[in-house]
Amino acid sequence: MPQLLQYKLQPAARLIRLMLAEYGTRFTLTEVKPWQRQDEWLKYDPSAEGPVFLVDNLPPIVGLSAIVLYIEENVAPDEQGKLLVPLGTAQRAETRRLFDWCMFKLADEATRYFLAEKLVKRDTSAAPDPAVLRAARSNLGEHLNYFTYLLTARRWLAGDAMTIADFALASQLSVIDYFADMPWESAPEVKDWYQRIKSRPAFRALLADRIVGLPASSVYAELDF
Amino acid sequence: MPQLLQYKLQPAARLIRLMLAEYGTRFTLTEVKPWQRQDEWLKYDPSAEGPVFLVDNLPPIVGLSAIVLYIEENVAPDEQGKLLVPLGTAQRAETRRLFDWCMFKLADEATRYFLAEKLVKRDTSAAPDPAVLRAARSNLGEHLNYFTYLLTARRWLAGDAMTIADFALASQLSVIDYFADMPWESAPEVKDWYQRIKSRPAFRALLADRIVGLPASSVYAELDF
Repeated sequence: MPQLLQYKLQPAARLIRLMLAEYGTRFTLTEVKPWQRQDEWLKYDPSAEGPVFLVDNLPPIVGLSAIVLYIEENVAPDEQGKLLVPLGTAQRAETRRLFDWCMFKLADEATRYFLAEKLVKRDTSAAPDPAVLRAARSNLGEHLNYFTYLLTARRWLAGDAMTIADFALASQLSVIDYFADMPWESAPEVKDWYQRIKSRPAFRALLADRIVGLPASSVYAELDF
Repeated sequence: MPQLLQYKLQPAARLIRLMLAEYGTRFTLTEVKPWQRQDEWLKYDPSAEGPVFLVDNLPPIVGLSAIVLYIEENVAPDEQGKLLVPLGTAQRAETRRLFDWCMFKLADEATRYFLAEKLVKRDTSAAPDPAVLRAARSNLGEHLNYFTYLLTARRWLAGDAMTIADFALASQLSVIDYFADMPWESAPEVKDWYQRIKSRPAFRALLADRIVGLPASSVYAELDF
């Protein structure tokens, strides 16, 4: 069975878990902490960024682009309407624009600070830096304004159909939500969208994630929050 | 004719320029500075990251993933051997692993600091921060060690054939080289690889780029340096 090497709140791994679950592919999860740079891990992934996907009869598939495109090319069903990447050229481009926005811009300006301050620092018993968290929350607010703008006019992030862009956004916001840093009441359109995507069967495994000593927010696993 | 909106030393745009030139597609360049957040530009790309590719009869194609995959799906020739993304599953994954490494990790840890300190700060007449440049050069050294390791065993970055991963690395190093920050003498395997890729016809237009008031390094356009 395929195996995904990741840590529980890793956004890129959450995106891949959502894709595989949506496509009905079974796989196992192995927990690693890339920031500890263990030899066992660096052997697969010298970038120490992860995630890594292990599939029978193939060398390790390493990193976000490699795994996402491997899944789209080898795992996704062919039937129209079941694709997380739509078929039309313009819709594909719009989906990928928002994929990049979520996985790189939102991740770079918000999610990674919450992870660094609240998750990674626990390993060295260091305290989170309140100034960094303040900046991350402020950046997050700007992003939520833009997603609100999109979701006021669209049912899903890239248009009428759910796409990989929705999973990309959910992979980021679900992590921030775990830390109780999502200002849901100030972004009702985003909250409405998140309630819909959170109710999908593909989401269940993510909502069961718990980290010892770092409890999830009270709403993290609630479908009606 | 397709039009690419970008600025001259933008690594993502250089990658796309190399791809289009390699595939023999004609296009025009329009210079924009996304960091100035002009309305004309934000209309196309609210992320203000760019680049943007304008093609007849399609909405603007925005951002790295959207443009690269648009080109692979719609512009690239079908014949084996002319593809920048190889056909085998394992080779595709390896190419994309190194694509991500260059376009995100190397960009994030080195190239963007050179651009911010040496290019963007000129607009406000601010002076580069020597501490930031020192850190960027140190990070660059670590990356060059890894590329040296790969290029000692391989002719091209991802294996025996040139791929989009080589263009990704060249898009980053050519920018750093413009600023005279490439320690070529300490990375002879990387230098040898760069001499080979720099000699390709697709590279010519990049070597003609000049920014007023910011001269290129003495070796920037030299094929034998």
